[in-house]
Amino acid sequence: MTRIAIDAMGGDNAPHEIVAGAVWAAKEYGVAIELVGKQDQIERELEKISTEGFLTDKGKGRGHRYNIKIDTSKLDIKVTHASEVIEMGEAPGQAIRKKKKSSIVLAVDAVAQGSSDAVVAAGSTGAAMASSLFGLGRLKGIDRPAIAVTLPTIKKPIVVIDGGANSNCSPEMLVQFAIMGATFSKNVLGIENPRVGVLNIGEEAGKGNELAQTTYRLLEEHQDKINFVGNIEGKEIFLSLCDVVVCDGFVGNVALKVTEGASSMLFTMLKNEFKADLIGKIIGLLAKPFMRRIYTKINYEEFGGALLLGVRGITVISHGRSKAYAIKNAVRVAKEAVESGVNEKIARFHEEE
Amino acid sequence: MTRIAIDAMGGDNAPHEIVAGAVWAAKEYGVAIELVGKQDQIERELEKISTEGFLTDKGKGRGHRYNIKIDTSKLDIKVTHASEVIEMGEAPGQAIRKKKKSSIVLAVDAVAQGSSDAVVAAGSTGAAMASSLFGLGRLKGIDRPAIAVTLPTIKKPIVVIDGGANSNCSPEMLVQFAIMGATFSKNVLGIENPRVGVLNIGEEAGKGNELAQTTYRLLEEHQDKINFVGNIEGKEIFLSLCDVVVCDGFVGNVALKVTEGASSMLFTMLKNEFKADLIGKIIGLLAKPFMRRIYTKINYEEFGGALLLGVRGITVISHGRSKAYAIKNAVRVAKEAVESGVNEKIARFHEEE
Repeated sequence: MTRIAIDAMGGDNAPHEIVAGAVWAAKEYGVAIELVGKQDQIERELEKISTEGFLTDKGKGRGHRYNIKIDTSKLDIKVTHASEVIEMGEAPGQAIRKKKKSSIVLAVDAVAQGSSDAVVAAGSTGAAMASSLFGLGRLKGIDRPAIAVTLPTIKKPIVVIDGGANSNCSPEMLVQFAIMGATFSKNVLGIENPRVGVLNIGEEAGKGNELAQTTYRLLEEHQDKINFVGNIEGKEIFLSLCDVVVCDGFVGNVALKVTEGASSMLFTMLKNEFKADLIGKIIGLLAKPFMRRIYTKINYEEFGGALLLGVRGITVISHGRSKAYAIKNAVRVAKEAVESGVNEKIARFHEEE
Repeated sequence: MTRIAIDAMGGDNAPHEIVAGAVWAAKEYGVAIELVGKQDQIERELEKISTEGFLTDKGKGRGHRYNIKIDTSKLDIKVTHASEVIEMGEAPGQAIRKKKKSSIVLAVDAVAQGSSDAVVAAGSTGAAMASSLFGLGRLKGIDRPAIAVTLPTIKKPIVVIDGGANSNCSPEMLVQFAIMGATFSKNVLGIENPRVGVLNIGEEAGKGNELAQTTYRLLEEHQDKINFVGNIEGKEIFLSLCDVVVCDGFVGNVALKVTEGASSMLFTMLKNEFKADLIGKIIGLLAKPFMRRIYTKINYEEFGGALLLGVRGITVISHGRSKAYAIKNAVRVAKEAVESGVNEKIARFHEEE
């Protein structure tokens, strides 16, 4: 049975929503769970879920809060005590060295020691990356781990890599990101022969900055192993012209956050338009379920989290605002990643070279 | 009277829509126009607009095509013959040297010689930039011109600079972009003491790549002259937390195109949801005018074009797909930029240092 370690203390809604999401996932996906954090707090939450249940507005009762009660004693849930917590503002490198008994460090350690197969973390992204890198080590052939973010498009989800782990990148790093992203797309998202594109500001090979130009040349040389389809522009990301978008973590993070910002601006604008008069309000009310369906499709909660690829283990990084439903989905992503053997396949890619 | 030179041969809909937009602007804004391109073609278009008129679906008859007839003989319109045209695929630097009699080169030359005050160009962005740089020269204190793009947000428009002129930038260049962007925001958009932010992937000074970090430090040193408010994240662009967003042309272009792509994906998704069943179709029909109002607010046609700042003259770069309405608005932007004296103010900024 796949076991997922979860930093129960990480994120804005810890430990309540994190524990609830973990229990929900254990029931729904049949995974074993290792909750890492303050033991008394976690046990109190588990007890509450068994007796009173927890509230959610996601899943079948969309739009309405409803209660889920789960008998936690019937599930394979282990609690590992961690006396410390790394807070959002702390410098990640320092924090993981100083707080060796923090929940994120011990959750990663559970994977390093083999008691769990993957980590789910909704706390500080930097701390999750740093503890994974130091606790698990890098995969063979990978210089720097990168964040693979699954993004909805009209047709099917695409992978953006790097979503923000590395602000300064070399072309060689971007080639490694391409390999990791394609392996993830194929083995976790199930896309045959995934098409890899370089995020750029024009189609032609000579376009863009030095990084994009050199990466283009290097990927052309690897076309026997990577299905490289050339440059991809910002507006084309959502048109399913490729399955994996490669870029440095700075550009990737800007692109992802601009997507989030532009989407929520449009929703706000539309809501404001509907509010203008009574007829608008009525039409807005009628249109609401349709808008909500779109919102669900593009909502980060459905994707659960981004994968840190390139470390010897699976680390899923969830949104700091994650509630139970997002955590449940993050556990699903972790389970799928473990079962797909994505890491072994990334490592094997380099052995074959 | 302000006179605007227009490359009548540039863009997907030249010369018909370009000439129509120019005439429309001459009538609506009381500007003089210098149309540069193939004389016979331009004169034929002018004749047609006077006798038959031109069709548009923008302006008062939104959503419906209607005809506008304008007596061009009553307007101050000059035609300057250009025997050559630079096509979209041509390498800009080479093309402007080889085609000295091309419409874009001669339109810029009209400004350099003083017969016009500004240029509007909807053709190759590269050719418009190169011919402006070589034909007009740089403003004092500016190493590289940059593209200032006005972007709609929920509250008020913001300026993103650089929108794509320079893929590889130094921190010193970004400081110049900040100065140009703030001067534009104040003098053309009328924003008092515009707040300048650096596009970055986190709030803290130490976040992001080397370029963003060093730019942050340099802008802090210039706080007596620039209202620097720190880093701004991709999702915050649309929240009006600042008035000018500074970034290199690669990141800026990705951000702008992602905004365009994400917006059109959302509209497509919403339309698809409404199509699902009969009730959806009816609600979709009712919601359409509201959606169209949003579309109008975020449509590039309303903004007309982006300004190339840093050259000794005003160059407005319009979308290659521009039709008459977008060209009319581009002429308005050019007129406002000329009358604001934005260039003199950018030059003066450096004299005061």
